[in-house]
Amino acid sequence: MPVAEPDIIGKLQKREPSGFLLASLRGVGQVDLQPLIWTGLLILAALWSAGWEIGLFATLGTLVSTATAYALGVDRSSIAVGLQGYSGCLTGIALVISLGHHPATYILAVVGAIMCTLLTATLTTLLSPYGLTALTAPFCLVSGVMVLGAPSFSRIWNGAPKPVSSPTTGDTGISWDDLWHAFFTNVSQVFLVDEWYVGLIMLAGLACAGARVVLFAAAGSVTGIVTAWALGAPTELIRNGIYGYNAVLVVIALGAVFLSGTVANGAYALFGAAVSTGLTASLTSLFKPFGGHTFTWPFILTTWVLMAAVPLLPRLRRSV
Amino acid sequence: MPVAEPDIIGKLQKREPSGFLLASLRGVGQVDLQPLIWTGLLILAALWSAGWEIGLFATLGTLVSTATAYALGVDRSSIAVGLQGYSGCLTGIALVISLGHHPATYILAVVGAIMCTLLTATLTTLLSPYGLTALTAPFCLVSGVMVLGAPSFSRIWNGAPKPVSSPTTGDTGISWDDLWHAFFTNVSQVFLVDEWYVGLIMLAGLACAGARVVLFAAAGSVTGIVTAWALGAPTELIRNGIYGYNAVLVVIALGAVFLSGTVANGAYALFGAAVSTGLTASLTSLFKPFGGHTFTWPFILTTWVLMAAVPLLPRLRRSV
Amino acid sequence: MPVAEPDIIGKLQKREPSGFLLASLRGVGQVDLQPLIWTGLLILAALWSAGWEIGLFATLGTLVSTATAYALGVDRSSIAVGLQGYSGCLTGIALVISLGHHPATYILAVVGAIMCTLLTATLTTLLSPYGLTALTAPFCLVSGVMVLGAPSFSRIWNGAPKPVSSPTTGDTGISWDDLWHAFFTNVSQVFLVDEWYVGLIMLAGLACAGARVVLFAAAGSVTGIVTAWALGAPTELIRNGIYGYNAVLVVIALGAVFLSGTVANGAYALFGAAVSTGLTASLTSLFKPFGGHTFTWPFILTTWVLMAAVPLLPRLRRSV
Repeated sequence: MPVAEPDIIGKLQKREPSGFLLASLRGVGQVDLQPLIWTGLLILAALWSAGWEIGLFATLGTLVSTATAYALGVDRSSIAVGLQGYSGCLTGIALVISLGHHPATYILAVVGAIMCTLLTATLTTLLSPYGLTALTAPFCLVSGVMVLGAPSFSRIWNGAPKPVSSPTTGDTGISWDDLWHAFFTNVSQVFLVDEWYVGLIMLAGLACAGARVVLFAAAGSVTGIVTAWALGAPTELIRNGIYGYNAVLVVIALGAVFLSGTVANGAYALFGAAVSTGLTASLTSLFKPFGGHTFTWPFILTTWVLMAAVPLLPRLRRSV
Repeated sequence: MPVAEPDIIGKLQKREPSGFLLASLRGVGQVDLQPLIWTGLLILAALWSAGWEIGLFATLGTLVSTATAYALGVDRSSIAVGLQGYSGCLTGIALVISLGHHPATYILAVVGAIMCTLLTATLTTLLSPYGLTALTAPFCLVSGVMVLGAPSFSRIWNGAPKPVSSPTTGDTGISWDDLWHAFFTNVSQVFLVDEWYVGLIMLAGLACAGARVVLFAAAGSVTGIVTAWALGAPTELIRNGIYGYNAVLVVIALGAVFLSGTVANGAYALFGAAVSTGLTASLTSLFKPFGGHTFTWPFILTTWVLMAAVPLLPRLRRSV
Repeated sequence: MPVAEPDIIGKLQKREPSGFLLASLRGVGQVDLQPLIWTGLLILAALWSAGWEIGLFATLGTLVSTATAYALGVDRSSIAVGLQGYSGCLTGIALVISLGHHPATYILAVVGAIMCTLLTATLTTLLSPYGLTALTAPFCLVSGVMVLGAPSFSRIWNGAPKPVSSPTTGDTGISWDDLWHAFFTNVSQVFLVDEWYVGLIMLAGLACAGARVVLFAAAGSVTGIVTAWALGAPTELIRNGIYGYNAVLVVIALGAVFLSGTVANGAYALFGAAVSTGLTASLTSLFKPFGGHTFTWPFILTTWVLMAAVPLLPRLRRSV
């Protein structure tokens, strides 16, 4: 992961508000594992374009997570590259989508963002002996626990929002229109949004981070579509990005961040994208009795498994 | 955790029965993380007052777990402070409550207590690299596995006992009578008992362990009540202690045992109590398809997560 | 675990096909934790005798897993003793049984066998700090995930195969005929086969590995039967080996491989066999909402728990 530009750490140490805001912007970009400020800015713009509630809760979650890390004295360089904000960003979005836009949801988003920062520390402690990072697991744990418990509490539960369509079977014929929609929604679905233009703006943000990043992201999206179609997934789910957003993340993580740029590593990243596409169906079935919140678990589990295998596979090499 | 008074280790090494009995008494107190003999004695009295089956199975479980550790050569100082007995204590209670008072339940309680000692060793091995302890996880694992498997076996299953009332929705108005009942049942529910006077005797036992312990326990109980009420939990569950016993344990663990006595640490402990209260609903929903045995998992998970985060949060400090 | 005969490593390094085939044969034997070539050969013959689809998919899975390890540069001595093939062997069998004999199943078996090799590396990384090995967990994870996700994909799902009979209640009277069937099917059920003669051939293969191995395997089978009967399991399940195959594996692992040959260790192994028998019912209940694929999880969990406890229990000793 790129080193933070020194001035953000400096601004944080001098307690300048601009340092805090720049670190938070990077936090938005770190959802896609990219610390560039321009990437964060474009992704944030894409989120606000998807709806003001989504933009607001993404902003709120990122700011609260980053501020919590600052208040608890977390290592400034980790804050400066945005690693303390991305889980709060996703948690804010997940809560407003799952629980609806109510006053109680604001309180839960703040508590959830605080918990994300704590869980980031917890997972860093637990995973660092293995050379693994927390990825988006704090988001998945906090959001999963909150959405699972919410219906038990009358003051935070206002009934389930409009049900997400998730047929397990359905038409598998695919058109050109389905394909290009899927290509972009695979990118936006990382943030639980299924609008193609949101994905397009996000891809522009990833392009700022370099050709390698955006090409791998695109390759991941294509791999997710091809795998899901080859397995026979319902077209509606492919078109909405349900089967491809994990593939996008896996390929960015393995192809552009954690492994060095060899052909074998690239093939390994694309293989991981295909695996995460299949795993999406398994985890969705696993979580169905509990309300079905797959979030980015397929990306997390695939990346952890494939990265932990690398030290024993001499053909592959970590980038660090 | 306080060091064992040297004479108990000595008595154990000389194979004096009194050493074994004193270590077992401490085991009862260690359910609340307190090794004081008087604490264990008062808690044991409270358990017998709750019903002779509960008292008997708690005693049986503690003795068998401690004896197993002794027979397998476990480190004597660990036995002497009661760390080999508490999981067996809770397992005995959980089995007689879940499976009823039948001859087969005695055999299962003995096997379960033996397994508790083995799992305590297992978890100590697995968790010690992270500076975490087993807490009551051996109890939760052994009791959960046994209660889950029991209906498959005709010689140990005599039908489910009277169903535990656990509505997920219900009246949320709260009276003074509900509040003081909840305050005490939060303490007794740690041992799966919902009688207020049992909690009162146990609080007296905790008072023997020092003002810090009993004050934190009381603060945990209050935090559990306030959080559950604020979220909108059904009054009946609050009154029966269902939403507060994990908060009591979390606050004792974080506030009085594992963290040093600073204001920030105290606030962290109370935050943990609130988190464990919400987590109780999530885990109860999670376990519902499998029969619903939440036990002390919310306490365990909250304490592990918050303790594993501490090394990366310079504002907080471990007590050791 | 016995050291590989040096010539297999040599053949692998010289890229002689015979080295690859001998390593794969050992892989079949390693399902029962035995690297002897004759053991692998007899077990493979037993699998083909159970049906050509089972024999073919077992062979395919073993070869692909071993070849993947070779291609990715995995340590040659690990390949030579068969440790890279056994999970693929079981995965091939599980997939053809669960998904039926269709063209897509061949592709899934190849992908599953590749994933087994990767997961073997992952688990080796994660478990080695604790002195534990992966056992058959790669098989359980890969097969579990694939079978869980398969119904979501129309091109690989051809409807559930004939349902496995698994009543949770039923007649518990047991005859001599039930007993000897159970004794042998406990051995064959390790490979998901419930034919007594298949178990008989496999026992012959284990006998090649030495008296200690085959005697412990037999003792494990008997312990499984006695425990299941004493608990009151339905006779039909006992007769089909459902309650005993994990006991066989646990006793081989603890009694004949991982612990030294003392009386205390032998008793511990038999205790583990009884525990795994009870655990089989718990895990079957746990997995029922998800389709019910217990595979060898009871063996894996029992062995991990009991082995991780050993360092703190001075009465017991590891063999290495």
